Amino acid sequence: MNPDIIVVGAGLAGLTAARRLTQAGRRVRVLEARERVGGRTQTLNLPQTGLSVDVGGQWVGPNQPHVMALIHELGLEVYPTHDEGQNIALLGGKTLHYRGLIPPLSPLVLADYALLSHKFEALVRSIPLEAPWTAPDAAELDAQTFDTWIGKHARRPQTRALMRLYAGAVFSADPAEMSMLHALTYTAHGGGINGHTLTRGHALQDRVLGGAGGISQRLADDLEDVQLNSPVIRVEQDGQGVTLHTPDGTHRAAHVVFAVPPTLLSGLPFHPPLPARRAQLQQRLPMGAVIKFMAVYERPFWREAGLSGMAISDVGPVTVTFDNSPPQGSPGVLLGFIEGHAARDLMDVGEDQRWEAALGSLARLFGDEALTPIETVQRDWTAEPFSGGCYGALFGPGVWTGYGEALRTPVGRIHWAGAETARVWMNYMDGAVESGERVAAELLG
Amino acid sequence: MNPDIIVVGAGLAGLTAARRLTQAGRRVRVLEARERVGGRTQTLNLPQTGLSVDVGGQWVGPNQPHVMALIHELGLEVYPTHDEGQNIALLGGKTLHYRGLIPPLSPLVLADYALLSHKFEALVRSIPLEAPWTAPDAAELDAQTFDTWIGKHARRPQTRALMRLYAGAVFSADPAEMSMLHALTYTAHGGGINGHTLTRGHALQDRVLGGAGGISQRLADDLEDVQLNSPVIRVEQDGQGVTLHTPDGTHRAAHVVFAVPPTLLSGLPFHPPLPARRAQLQQRLPMGAVIKFMAVYERPFWREAGLSGMAISDVGPVTVTFDNSPPQGSPGVLLGFIEGHAARDLMDVGEDQRWEAALGSLARLFGDEALTPIETVQRDWTAEPFSGGCYGALFGPGVWTGYGEALRTPVGRIHWAGAETARVWMNYMDGAVESGERVAAELLG
Repeated sequence: MNPDIIVVGAGLAGLTAARRLTQAGRRVRVLEARERVGGRTQTLNLPQTGLSVDVGGQWVGPNQPHVMALIHELGLEVYPTHDEGQNIALLGGKTLHYRGLIPPLSPLVLADYALLSHKFEALVRSIPLEAPWTAPDAAELDAQTFDTWIGKHARRPQTRALMRLYAGAVFSADPAEMSMLHALTYTAHGGGINGHTLTRGHALQDRVLGGAGGISQRLADDLEDVQLNSPVIRVEQDGQGVTLHTPDGTHRAAHVVFAVPPTLLSGLPFHPPLPARRAQLQQRLPMGAVIKFMAVYERPFWREAGLSGMAISDVGPVTVTFDNSPPQGSPGVLLGFIEGHAARDLMDVGEDQRWEAALGSLARLFGDEALTPIETVQRDWTAEPFSGGCYGALFGPGVWTGYGEALRTPVGRIHWAGAETARVWMNYMDGAVESGERVAAELLG
Repeated sequence: MNPDIIVVGAGLAGLTAARRLTQAGRRVRVLEARERVGGRTQTLNLPQTGLSVDVGGQWVGPNQPHVMALIHELGLEVYPTHDEGQNIALLGGKTLHYRGLIPPLSPLVLADYALLSHKFEALVRSIPLEAPWTAPDAAELDAQTFDTWIGKHARRPQTRALMRLYAGAVFSADPAEMSMLHALTYTAHGGGINGHTLTRGHALQDRVLGGAGGISQRLADDLEDVQLNSPVIRVEQDGQGVTLHTPDGTHRAAHVVFAVPPTLLSGLPFHPPLPARRAQLQQRLPMGAVIKFMAVYERPFWREAGLSGMAISDVGPVTVTFDNSPPQGSPGVLLGFIEGHAARDLMDVGEDQRWEAALGSLARLFGDEALTPIETVQRDWTAEPFSGGCYGALFGPGVWTGYGEALRTPVGRIHWAGAETARVWMNYMDGAVESGERVAAELLG
């Protein structure tokens, strides 16, 4: 018997959509290209220490209602990100230890940063989350890069460095790679800079006990028809339904939901062809570049030195670190991110060279003890063909204003979900869940 | 028997590569997704007047040695673009009639434009054609949009309007949609602004007798193994060769050349996966947006009024026109281009509304006689799934510097051709031919 609805993509968005549609009595099939569910989230058990680690998305916060509600619905638990102790900022050749939000830079730099972030946040508040192309001055904001805006408004190099670190940490990209309208829209989706970057009360507050990959696993366990290793290679839509071709056969349903990064659809043949605006949108949403890596130590030695494990650095390749130890605090785990141009610099080198560079960064921040982990793991998301990169799509200049309207607009019986289509917290786990619930409501409405 | 080499894409690039490889004794198969050869060139015979018209690429010039040599090699002929009479410029609400290069704007505007174009051309000359990411200040030029640069250097609105018209006519995009480094690189590929925009001695000098589609047709006629309706849906590479899957079967050869717009490869499954830099490059090369349309009249009535048929207008949707009449001058044909945001504005409307808007533009320039053509034809290239848009790919901010090195670098036995990979005249017919010859040399070397 044919399903009523086929969902393509067994990440958080697709599985959430499938759950809501199933709960409403629809017969749903999920087709997943990979040999696993979870998309841009994945929990691995490390072979040596047996530790469960998230090599993909991992954080959730109380300002993210969709994913928090789903976690509780599934009977999963969260625990707080370790953030006690002093943070480190390595900026302009100086290492600063500090508590709180902002490194103790010179008063001139702090004043400059305060002024710039005040201007930025005022613009952020002017963005309609669901339709940034209708913002005041949308055309002007979308005709320049975030880098251009920073260059115009930051008077001190350290201010520029802080904004670059923000772009790297939050967009996994350089400020040159996105439009200013996108920088504002994305920031607005998290309620401002702090919403994205802080722990207590914000997006980095909590982690999922057992790993964030468990959310997708539980969602999939509750569904009856999830087919792995089933990449869609051709789509045919007619007046009665949609037929999807995979290498092993065909699947047909009255409606289809695509819950994958839009760039992966760019070369996929649709019959009839997609409308021009939708087709060209898909060409214009490249994915960010990020390598996530973790080093495991017998104990979290930095805590003994009074450090939180959280650091920012304007010396690459690692620019942001966290204490990613399990709740019991042992073993100790340092988490580092390599983003944007730094990730590109390491795209073409071997794993050994990448490790050397990453551990060198950790040692610069936390001392030589960081050079001898007992176990390590890394994931270069740019090399994952069924993600294309992480955390999500970047909107370059002209894309929101020229193509934004096509982002969620169904094409006949084909509907669009996925973290990129979220109306809040786009490209986050929360946005993925929101998009799944939105598309389910669209189909049930 | 398996071919030695398979070429994917029967546009000018792929067919040129196949010709050169065949001439060198290789067994070559060409796989083409469409039911025709020619790619972004196509010559149609209009049903009513029987006129042959190019709905795709049409111009060649003496500054384009690769395509000119191929045209002569194939025994085809060219004839001059009609450019006699006065040109029209509709700018800032005023209609100007003039001869020569530059409309007779006020001295203040002319001085401003002269200064700006002098600065622009000086930067153009600093760009290494084959490696723009090594240009002086490449990082800074690639971190801003062309629009940002224009806004900074143009003091008069008419100067900005002229640069916008240049972007539309030459890139089929708005200045906001591309990086400044790309605007310079692309301009440098044609030897400067005039190389791209003028007739005698430049890129618009000549047209191909019988239509530019005839080049690809003759190339294909000389080849033994061109298979139409064969879209590639999966690629497998191993130590001995490459296997290509199409809906009807598999094809295998020692080497493969892809000669298609890179964006069409973004969702195509490659096994093993492409290197990250190549994969992310393919996500970052969206196609321009252009609708080409022609209106046929009993006679070229504008010539009788002393007009050349060439016009520029800052009032859309048509912003550039030409006299596209056949060599004998009858019937009369006006050619209009709708580009960038103007093409997007007409993406979602019906053909009738599009025609009304286009003919309205012609009438504004050439009088009411333009409203009653005897035959019309239009082609919205953004709606062509196997092109994805025209004239070619746009490089947004950060793409040349972050990913340019991957543009032509082979991945094992897979080589890259196509107008986007050209080392000169990228995105033009000349660049397509150059890329085909370059990739053939790569495989024969």
